[in-house]
Amino acid sequence: METVEERLDRLEREVARLRDHVAISQLIASYGPLADTAENFELGLDAGSLWEEDGRYDLGSDWIGTGPQGVAALLDNGEHQALVGQGGAHVLSLPVITLSGDEAKAVNYSRVYRHEAGHFSLWRVSANYWELRRTDGQWKVVLRRNRMLDGSEDARAILRQVATFRG
Amino acid sequence: METVEERLDRLEREVARLRDHVAISQLIASYGPLADTAENFELGLDAGSLWEEDGRYDLGSDWIGTGPQGVAALLDNGEHQALVGQGGAHVLSLPVITLSGDEAKAVNYSRVYRHEAGHFSLWRVSANYWELRRTDGQWKVVLRRNRMLDGSEDARAILRQVATFRG
Amino acid sequence: METVEERLDRLEREVARLRDHVAISQLIASYGPLADTAENFELGLDAGSLWEEDGRYDLGSDWIGTGPQGVAALLDNGEHQALVGQGGAHVLSLPVITLSGDEAKAVNYSRVYRHEAGHFSLWRVSANYWELRRTDGQWKVVLRRNRMLDGSEDARAILRQVATFRG
Repeated sequence: METVEERLDRLEREVARLRDHVAISQLIASYGPLADTAENFELGLDAGSLWEEDGRYDLGSDWIGTGPQGVAALLDNGEHQALVGQGGAHVLSLPVITLSGDEAKAVNYSRVYRHEAGHFSLWRVSANYWELRRTDGQWKVVLRRNRMLDGSEDARAILRQVATFRG
Repeated sequence: METVEERLDRLEREVARLRDHVAISQLIASYGPLADTAENFELGLDAGSLWEEDGRYDLGSDWIGTGPQGVAALLDNGEHQALVGQGGAHVLSLPVITLSGDEAKAVNYSRVYRHEAGHFSLWRVSANYWELRRTDGQWKVVLRRNRMLDGSEDARAILRQVATFRG
Repeated sequence: METVEERLDRLEREVARLRDHVAISQLIASYGPLADTAENFELGLDAGSLWEEDGRYDLGSDWIGTGPQGVAALLDNGEHQALVGQGGAHVLSLPVITLSGDEAKAVNYSRVYRHEAGHFSLWRVSANYWELRRTDGQWKVVLRRNRMLDGSEDARAILRQVATFRG
């Protein structure tokens, strides 16, 4: 029979896990709105602030940003700026998350939509793999790897991680 | 050292926040299925019932509905009825939510898909800003502002709210 | 005035509900990544393992799979294998969930995207109705019914379930 203290200890652990789960889902859901309004480098730092100082956003060989400044720099390029100006949306799907103390991994899909000549269209569909860490009570991105779902093995390898989450 | 009562008080506050977070996510996720089956004014009231009596659904200057009846009236028009009949889907993305007691704000994306001549297509991509209130234990919409992501500053202003949520 | 034991009992019930809600959302979010990497029957069993032994995946009259093996068999066909190889994504939206002890129901949307000739396109948009059961502490699918949102009454009947969830 559990004592009151044991029940409280267990409840606190369970509530902490649920809180972490929500916090990570919210962090990931925040990326789109912050990226889609990153009209310049300064505003891009708000999206960048989701990353750790040494955290990486890896979009492929020539597109890797490190830390808030590196992520803001990735967003401060002609293609992304054109997308923001003409109307674009980075929509991230509900992530599958696995927690382990102060660390977490997640997998989800992202889609980029754009507005051109009066019509909306789907531009890209990607697989995303996330590693996250809690420092001083705040979850941040350690690694986000994004690969387009164009048939490449890299993208499938990201999605496949989900099988290891449910062990 | 916290007493048992202090630990219980804290846990109850934390669990209440998580419950509110889930309730608001569910309310927002319910809109699509209710709107996509609003085949007439009566059925539109189910979608409308997500709003407060004085709550507003603001889709732009000529498209503002107030209260359950006003929202049902917005859905009871030729364009929406055609969409429901031929096959349409209003899919709302995972919202970013900020809670403050009995009030909350949220930001997310919505997409409208339609089926025509045997094919599915993306019709609209919008930014959504929500204000919600809990009355008698039930969360309802006080304001939903929807703006198409067509490059307009209005839509970016909605998404930009997320930066203020993470203060 | 509640006693400490009564407060603990209530908190445990509330936390259990939140945990179930998260577990079911995660199960549903896992389907896409597992299906999109089901390159053969063996790998398809990982997606299949989300179902109960007698659980059904009902995609319409000629497309019904029963149990993990039946679901894996559905995924092990030429059309799905081509999709996996050329790049495809099954993205499931945030579900609306209703819990009742060890049973649950959920409704959401799914979209299938595919990559062809260097472009991404939207292939299908469907309504999904889920019945789930907890056995030995693990949630599994008892029934998933999927109907394309092509104007058919079947698809609207699925979405309409949400009105009964909020009673």
